[in-house]
Order: sequence, then structure tokens, then C-alpha cells
Amino acid sequence: MPQQIALSDGGRPPGHFRNTAYMVNESKPYFDAAHVSGLMAVQARSMAGRTVALGTGRLDSRPLVTDFVRCSYLGLDNHPVIVAGAIEAIEAHRSLHWSCARTRLNFDLLAELEATLSEMFCARVLAFSTVMLANLGAMPLLASGQLTGGRKPVVVFDRIAHTSLAYHKPVVADETRVETIAHNDIDALERLCREHPVVAYVCDGVYSMGGNSPIKELRQLQERYGLFLYIDDAHGISLFGRQGEGFARSQFPQVLGDRTIIAASLAKGFGASGGMLMVGTADYEALFRRYSIPYAFSVAPNLAAVGAALGSCKIHRSAELGERQRQLAERIKIFDRRVVTAEQGNSFPIRMIAIGSEAKAIAIARELLDAGFYTSVTFFPTVGRGKAGIRVCITADHEARDIERLCDCILERIADPAGKLL
Amino acid sequence: MPQQIALSDGGRPPGHFRNTAYMVNESKPYFDAAHVSGLMAVQARSMAGRTVALGTGRLDSRPLVTDFVRCSYLGLDNHPVIVAGAIEAIEAHRSLHWSCARTRLNFDLLAELEATLSEMFCARVLAFSTVMLANLGAMPLLASGQLTGGRKPVVVFDRIAHTSLAYHKPVVADETRVETIAHNDIDALERLCREHPVVAYVCDGVYSMGGNSPIKELRQLQERYGLFLYIDDAHGISLFGRQGEGFARSQFPQVLGDRTIIAASLAKGFGASGGMLMVGTADYEALFRRYSIPYAFSVAPNLAAVGAALGSCKIHRSAELGERQRQLAERIKIFDRRVVTAEQGNSFPIRMIAIGSEAKAIAIARELLDAGFYTSVTFFPTVGRGKAGIRVCITADHEARDIERLCDCILERIADPAGKLL
Repeated sequence: MPQQIALSDGGRPPGHFRNTAYMVNESKPYFDAAHVSGLMAVQARSMAGRTVALGTGRLDSRPLVTDFVRCSYLGLDNHPVIVAGAIEAIEAHRSLHWSCARTRLNFDLLAELEATLSEMFCARVLAFSTVMLANLGAMPLLASGQLTGGRKPVVVFDRIAHTSLAYHKPVVADETRVETIAHNDIDALERLCREHPVVAYVCDGVYSMGGNSPIKELRQLQERYGLFLYIDDAHGISLFGRQGEGFARSQFPQVLGDRTIIAASLAKGFGASGGMLMVGTADYEALFRRYSIPYAFSVAPNLAAVGAALGSCKIHRSAELGERQRQLAERIKIFDRRVVTAEQGNSFPIRMIAIGSEAKAIAIARELLDAGFYTSVTFFPTVGRGKAGIRVCITADHEARDIERLCDCILERIADPAGKLL
Repeated sequence: MPQQIALSDGGRPPGHFRNTAYMVNESKPYFDAAHVSGLMAVQARSMAGRTVALGTGRLDSRPLVTDFVRCSYLGLDNHPVIVAGAIEAIEAHRSLHWSCARTRLNFDLLAELEATLSEMFCARVLAFSTVMLANLGAMPLLASGQLTGGRKPVVVFDRIAHTSLAYHKPVVADETRVETIAHNDIDALERLCREHPVVAYVCDGVYSMGGNSPIKELRQLQERYGLFLYIDDAHGISLFGRQGEGFARSQFPQVLGDRTIIAASLAKGFGASGGMLMVGTADYEALFRRYSIPYAFSVAPNLAAVGAALGSCKIHRSAELGERQRQLAERIKIFDRRVVTAEQGNSFPIRMIAIGSEAKAIAIARELLDAGFYTSVTFFPTVGRGKAGIRVCITADHEARDIERLCDCILERIADPAGKLL
């Protein structure tokens, strides 16, 4: 039993982390059905508010639907200040993108963006072209022990940590021990903290399929055991905090310190394009600026992304941010008053309508689309088999009546008389 | 010896692929010296041609230098048609980026871009926000056997395949056997093809530190043994072929088939921002559009990148492309007539000035910067220790006299009387 022996030695057998063929083969019928139903790979154009014009060709002949798929939770992705920022940056440089490493040459505006974000979020902020690449750059550095005083940590992943984190498990495991614990299992995490001198925990702040990390409890483990925290708050940024510092950052002290890194999006709530890391020390900043793999290649955010983000910073530093945060909270309440979900009452904009059968979830999502609402039908491998559902992303930019009509359409199709879905 | 047993079983011990701590610790003095010399993390603004204004603040007080760092080999990264394309796309949609999966909602212009690229390059082209993410999406699918008739291949990497490929070795090794062979070692590759029923080879087309893959010999192995080829031609795209199909694609038949995938850049020679994959069959296209990991998250190229790429397509389909290709070839000859490198006489725009000592390479790069030329000093881990050098990226947009002056400055510092450097 060589695999057993290797495992007991801290190694792991091949196939421990991934089984791509299985995933592809098992999910094929669901993907086929969703494609046939016209729910996948939809083309569209951005119109006013949350309206999109489906298809291609002449705009005036295309059906208009209200979109609940995009994660632009504050409704910023077509905000005129952000759009203008993108165009101004391109015009100022008469260029969009430089194909060279950030370790070499950087657009001066990118330095301005990072300085502004650093001030806003009380951290040293590094920008990336996507959160996925921010995470890719961080995981090997975390595994190496460079973020934990030169001692390699046991790296513990939440079981449903985002794929842009979980993808890297084999890479991390090539350098140190990897453990995966049940979702939000603080007791399991504490046991590992007791058993091992150096532990790092990798999780989402707000989970893309609903729910959140227990930041308060994680901070207690950090204080008690020195736990290192790497939190991807892509879905939590901008929605909370006076300047939009987000779900995770707003629960840490003003000085972020050397045991916490927060990844976040410059898209989603932030409304621009790209990703960022918030680190707490000059040493970490230097480390990432030299050794984060995407930094060494041509993957800086392009100038449009930089300009859009600078535009969004203006909004984040104005009274408009708080207004949009409040508007979002109201919109979520409108949904929650009508439709019961596992997420009911939490302050996040993601709601999962649990349905169960993949075929039924696809059929209902199609009916919603026919009624003028584009939602995300979710099925394996995004969620477990037989646990299909419909994801609804609520934004500050949705009209109250759109949310009410969506709720009516959902209830007509799946509610028992009490309106309870789960 | 559990690790030995695991190895003989097709597994591998931890630490087989990466040693991040070693890399960080060993390269620190070189990075420190290069930073102190002002050669790293430089900020600048794009000016006319290959000129950039260093630093931040008032433009008229900044030093101007000629840049040889950017990989915009055809000088397109500030071409007015490309810049205008970026702005037009943003204006048409009044939006820059949608934060949602490409499996869900896509800007209609992105579909137009992919259709245009597919026609130009005689392949089914999928666009990504970076080549690194295109590769990230492909590697697990390659490992899974989904690209090789359901049978998992032995995945063979060229030893100096780009980090955006090599990074994924542990991920690939989690699903199938991984081998690494010496650079361009066709004999070793043929031996593996004889020993194993299904083999895939992962390499660059044009290598970022000079040289190229022997495509003709690789195609012979493909015909003889059914070898699957995954070629990252980020540095070869646009420079060759009537419509800029690039170094790799132009050496394959019109029908790409089911045993070759070519990754390429929408930046570099192409002049826009982002990456792409060229695949040969409808099945592969569907597979990637469903299961390429970046496709399932919010990492589509933003609209500015899409619009810029559409602008670049216009240039690629006009006589201007051939003119720029010829101009680049002339510029390379000007360099080669003056300075001898290992790359002398090849048709690629990358030249490596071999110096050896890291300290000396850094000092010379600083002197070149003082003389008005920004070049890339390269040292461990980019190249081996004691093999430091200076990378020069020649473009069609460099003035002949700029290249001559750069050559003079290089020769003054390192040549023996015959002008030979190596």
C-alpha cells in the first residue's frame, strides 16, 4: 500500500486533489441541458440599470431582460464616473496595456491607484488583473513559509474555499502539508492550531454561493495561536465599511499586521476590473512585488481597468457609497420578505434558491428568463449533485419592483403555500 | 523509504517541483541590488514611439528614455487604431467589465472578436484576460485525458517552458505522470513517445529568453506517434504569417486538428491586452467553454481589451501588418550586424546579452539607463546563477539610430575588440 505509506509520511497519493475527468463526465448532461435551454454562454449588451439586451445584431430587435447574474452588487459596473475614468486613463497614455513585467515598467497611474487604495483600506494594496492571479501569486509564497517567519505552515483550506484558491492545493502540497476541513469548522481548525506550531487558513470572506466566514472566531484563533489568515473577500469588498473596505477588512484592526492577507476584487462590488491584495507590512509588499508570479509577467491590470478603479475610488470616498450600501441592504430586505432561503436575514447580496433536481432547476431558470429575469442556474460541480438551484445576485441598482416581480415568479414555481422553499 | 515507493508507483515526493523559499533566499541580493540601482519597478508614461517618460509628477520634468523592455514587437501598443478600438468598445457599452462567468453572460463584442480571430488564424479561438489564465484553464484538461481520447497522457514539459506553464506541474501531476526533459531534447521526447501510448508535450513556441521550439521535428513526432502538442506562442504571435498567425500556427496545416493547441497573447506582438487559445475541433471548444476554470469565473477580457483587439485585427488584415513585420526584421538585422549574441541571425526579436556576473549585469543595465536606454537585466531565478545578462526586446517601432546607439553603448561596455560577447 505505497499510497498509505506516503500519506502517513506527510505526502499524498496522485489524484488526491483533483479528478477532472470525473467532473467533466458527471456534469456533462447538466451542461448539455442548460445549453439547450439557452441559459449558458449568453451574449448581450449593457443597457441602462440592470437591463441587458440579449443576443447580437440590431439593438432595437433584441429582447431586454433584467440581469441577476452579474456581481456588480452596488450597481457600479456601468456608472458614468467609472466608465469615464477608464476612457480618461487610455487617453492620457494613448495606450491600453504594456506587455512587460510589473517588476520592470509600470504605468504611473497604476502607482497612483495602489497609493489611493492603500490609504482607503489601511493596508498596502497591490493591484492585479484578476483576483485569480492575485491568489496564484500568493499561494506559493504562503506555502514557502515566507509569510510565517521562515517556518512552513500547515495550510488549511475551507472545503468550499473558492476554486481560485483550491486549484492551488497541489502546488502548496508540493512544498508543505495541506489539510482541508469542513466548511467553517472552527473546532477542526483549532485542533490543527493546537497540533502544529504554524498554521495558515485559506478561506473566502463572503462565499460566492452564499454565507460567510466567522471572522470573529478566526481572529480569536489568530490571537490565541498565531494563526495566519488568507481571506479572499472578492464578494465582500465595497459592500461594508465607510470607504468600502469590505466584510473582511472591516473586522480587523486598523493595523493589519503580519498575520493577515486579504484578497479582494476591483470588479464585483468595486465596479471596475481586476483584483487586489491587502498586506500589512513593507516586507510583505516587497516580497509580493518581487516574487508573486503574475508580477514577473505581463499581467498588470490594463489602463482602462486602472482608470475605472480610480473612478470607483472617487465614488468610494463620497457620500454616494453609503447611499448605495443602504440601497443594497433595502433591496436584500425586499427579497427576504418574499422568499425564504438559507441566506435569509444575512447582509450579503447572494441568495440561493434551493431546488434539488438539476432538470427542474434548469426548467425554472428558463421560465424565469422567459419572464424577463436572467439568473444563474447552479449545478454540479459548482454545488453537489442533486443540490441544484438558482443563484440570485441582488444589487443596489435593481428596482424594487423588479425584485418583487422576480420573487413572484420564483414563488409561483416552487413555493409551498407558506412561501417556504427549503 | 516511503517516498521511493511512492515514486516507483508513479507518484512523486513533496518538493519535487517547487522550492519557493530557496528561490527567494538565493535571489534576494540580486533583487536588492537591482532595486537600489533603480532598474526595477520603474514607473513611467507612454510617449511617442518607444519613448517613455520615467517617474511620476509633471510630464515636462521627467527624463525620457527609449524602452527595450516592452514586448510590443510590432510597436502596436500605442497604435491609434488600437487605442481608438478600446475607447469605442467602452463607449458602445457604457461599461468596462461584467463580473460574471463567461459560461453565463458575455459582451456581444467578445463574440465578434472570437469569430474574427478564428477566421484569421484558421482555428477556433477563445479569448482570455491573460495567457497565464488561458494556460491555467488548459493544463487540468490536458492532464485529465479529455484532449487525448479519454486516455491520460504522460505530460512532458520542456525544462525551460514558461513559468505560466511550469507552475501547473504539481496540478497536472495530481492527475497523471509528469516528465521534464532538457530544452528542445527531441530524442528524449521520442523515447517517451516510444515508451508510452499517449504523450503530450508542453513548450513555448518562441522562448521569452531567446530561441524557439523545433516545430518541424515536433510535427514529425506528432505524425509518427500521435504526440499531443501544447505550444505557448505568446512571443511568436503576429510576427509571422500573412495575417499574423505567428511562429507556431504558421507551421501547422490549415486544419489544426485534435492533437495541437496553441496559446498566444493578445498583447505583445498583437498589441492589445489578454490571451487566447487556438483549438482545432468543436468538441474542444465546447470543453473549454464549459470547464476551463477561468471561464467559470469573472475573468473575461474587459471591453477595452476586446475593443483594442478588434482594432488590432483590422491592422492584422491590412497591408500594414506585413510592413511592420518587414520593419521588425530589418531592425533585428541592424542589431545583429553590431552585436553578437547566441540569437544572432534568428528571426525573433529577443536578444540576450550574456554577461555572467549578476553585479556586472546590474551595473551595465544602470549605465545603459543613464545613456537613455531601459533594458531588462535578467538574473536568477529567471536564468541560472552566474548567467546574468541583459535582455533587449527589439520592435518595429524603434528608430534605426536608436538601435545603433544602443549597440554602441553595449559594445563600449562589454565587447572584446572583435565585438564578440559570448
